[in-house]
Amino acid sequence: MKIVTVHATTSYCVCIGKGLLQQAGKEIKKIIQPCKVAILSDDNVAPLYADIVCQSLQQEGFSTCVYAFPAGEASKRIHTLSNILEYLAQEEITRQDLIIALGGGVVGDMAGFSAAIYQRGVRFVQIPTTFLAAIDSSVGGKTAIDLEAGKNLAGAFYQPQLVLCDTDVISSLPKDIFSDGIAEAIKYGVLGNRDLFAQLQTGDFMEQLEDIIESCVSMKRDIVQEDEFDNGKRQLLNLGHTFGHAIEHCSHFKISHGHAVAIGMHWIARAAEHKGIAKPGTAKQIAEALRKNHLPLETEYAPAQIASGALLDKKRRGDNISFVFPLEIGNCIIQKVPISEVPALADLAALAVKE
Amino acid sequence: MKIVTVHATTSYCVCIGKGLLQQAGKEIKKIIQPCKVAILSDDNVAPLYADIVCQSLQQEGFSTCVYAFPAGEASKRIHTLSNILEYLAQEEITRQDLIIALGGGVVGDMAGFSAAIYQRGVRFVQIPTTFLAAIDSSVGGKTAIDLEAGKNLAGAFYQPQLVLCDTDVISSLPKDIFSDGIAEAIKYGVLGNRDLFAQLQTGDFMEQLEDIIESCVSMKRDIVQEDEFDNGKRQLLNLGHTFGHAIEHCSHFKISHGHAVAIGMHWIARAAEHKGIAKPGTAKQIAEALRKNHLPLETEYAPAQIASGALLDKKRRGDNISFVFPLEIGNCIIQKVPISEVPALADLAALAVKE
Repeated sequence: MKIVTVHATTSYCVCIGKGLLQQAGKEIKKIIQPCKVAILSDDNVAPLYADIVCQSLQQEGFSTCVYAFPAGEASKRIHTLSNILEYLAQEEITRQDLIIALGGGVVGDMAGFSAAIYQRGVRFVQIPTTFLAAIDSSVGGKTAIDLEAGKNLAGAFYQPQLVLCDTDVISSLPKDIFSDGIAEAIKYGVLGNRDLFAQLQTGDFMEQLEDIIESCVSMKRDIVQEDEFDNGKRQLLNLGHTFGHAIEHCSHFKISHGHAVAIGMHWIARAAEHKGIAKPGTAKQIAEALRKNHLPLETEYAPAQIASGALLDKKRRGDNISFVFPLEIGNCIIQKVPISEVPALADLAALAVKE
Repeated sequence: MKIVTVHATTSYCVCIGKGLLQQAGKEIKKIIQPCKVAILSDDNVAPLYADIVCQSLQQEGFSTCVYAFPAGEASKRIHTLSNILEYLAQEEITRQDLIIALGGGVVGDMAGFSAAIYQRGVRFVQIPTTFLAAIDSSVGGKTAIDLEAGKNLAGAFYQPQLVLCDTDVISSLPKDIFSDGIAEAIKYGVLGNRDLFAQLQTGDFMEQLEDIIESCVSMKRDIVQEDEFDNGKRQLLNLGHTFGHAIEHCSHFKISHGHAVAIGMHWIARAAEHKGIAKPGTAKQIAEALRKNHLPLETEYAPAQIASGALLDKKRRGDNISFVFPLEIGNCIIQKVPISEVPALADLAALAVKE
């Protein structure tokens, strides 16, 4: 088992290893006295894993209850939040109890946000069951829901007490869900780790999964610790996300987050090359790594549509929006772009680069 | 103008004085550069005061928009929150902009909670237009919504940048709304200020309104600063609130907060006398002060109903619930009561004391 310690408003450990689902009760009891635990999950994950986690907790003296909502991004909305909050009240969860997120990114967001606001804050443990959630949402304390107007427009900064990443669970994911995580892992490579990028570029790395998760989590930890409340360096983590979020929104969330980020990364790399910011060949390298891992490079939506979606982004500050541009593999920068120039940037991004 | 400075996660000033509505733009500009301002209000208050605040802000270079939801506790729900968040997104409010709460306690809660979670946090200024909101919700940073299961069950701790209490507005309130504030002011007297209690007991104090608000706000400030996150001393502020919230809930919020707290204070004082905790005569003194200010002392609901409602309270910790008992006017204590004993406590509370 690998352990990455995160120092934020609250300090906590991210544990990465085999069989952690079965060990959940033991690991949690090291930091939290037996209490009532509300396990929040979705209807894909709960039937597979909720019983294992419940048994493990009960063996250590915790009492448990499970609430599962419909799987998918469409649940990341205020009506699900409302249902969860009423469920917690019905179960008479108090501030002395615990909420566990058992699932992927949507579950992590919904459970984390619910924990942040139910009775103005209840302790919370994350058990991410997807590769994407393990490396993306398990560190940083960002939780959010989508509004009609766009993705992640309301939420809270809220830190978990503990994160348990079970590599047995993650390595048994269906391919398309696993590949969502690869897109985010490639992002970390492009941001600042050429070795990681090279490893992922091979498309064959299941034996090194524990190490790869540790690399990604450590890197995110380092960035987040410098900027817990997302006012500066943390924006680097948005590489590929501004166009990515717009693509998700255009597709009404039929295109998954990881796939949208893959396209978004490819697009912004092309735009960066056309603008002379990125070293020639950068977009091609990213394209190859994505292709090797069966990730998409292009979208059916027009640049103008993507540009409109991007303008709803939280990274917009008044008349500017911050984009993360790659300089080369392993090195990126943040640049403000006036909103009037975003349509032109999207046009550039859609344009093929010379081979 | 009196100024009370509050030191919390963020430090801010509570300004109390005449004509502050007209001065809002000037006061806000001292701490916040001109930006877009979303004024959140209700359909009672907005027609009276929104224009004055907008003009005052526009004169200083701010741009403004106004959203008013239906007045009343029934709006303190997640559907109103959802409407506000979508409104803010439509108006393209960003993290660099400002939200103003213009109204009473419900507006303060809804605007404050919206500001806390919209884009994970936008700056926020409070302009309380009721006596109750000025002395109760303007300090402490507690925001919340009601759930089906009970009052204030979800929310956030979120501090404003500035609070402006206009005594012209507060002194022109309808009598029943003004009296809600008197109940809370009497609470501060019972908690720790015998002079304030004596002043309020006369029922004639409009000339001293600025001083009274300052006394209450300073007292709340002192308690909150010792306990920002509500784990100890701050529970003193719940005097009369545990039964009070239960009464509000039983009446489906037809009984106002202040009136419910008045009854709750009277009830807990009687229970404290019967249990030998309070000095004989304490309940009578409180009853007289409430009566002089046309506040209610009794409820139509049975003690068993009140007890059930009280058990949903956030102040419940596992098998105990904390009650605040008066020892005498100006001195109170917090005591844990096992939940099994709450029905008996409600029975005692309903019982008349010997004169």
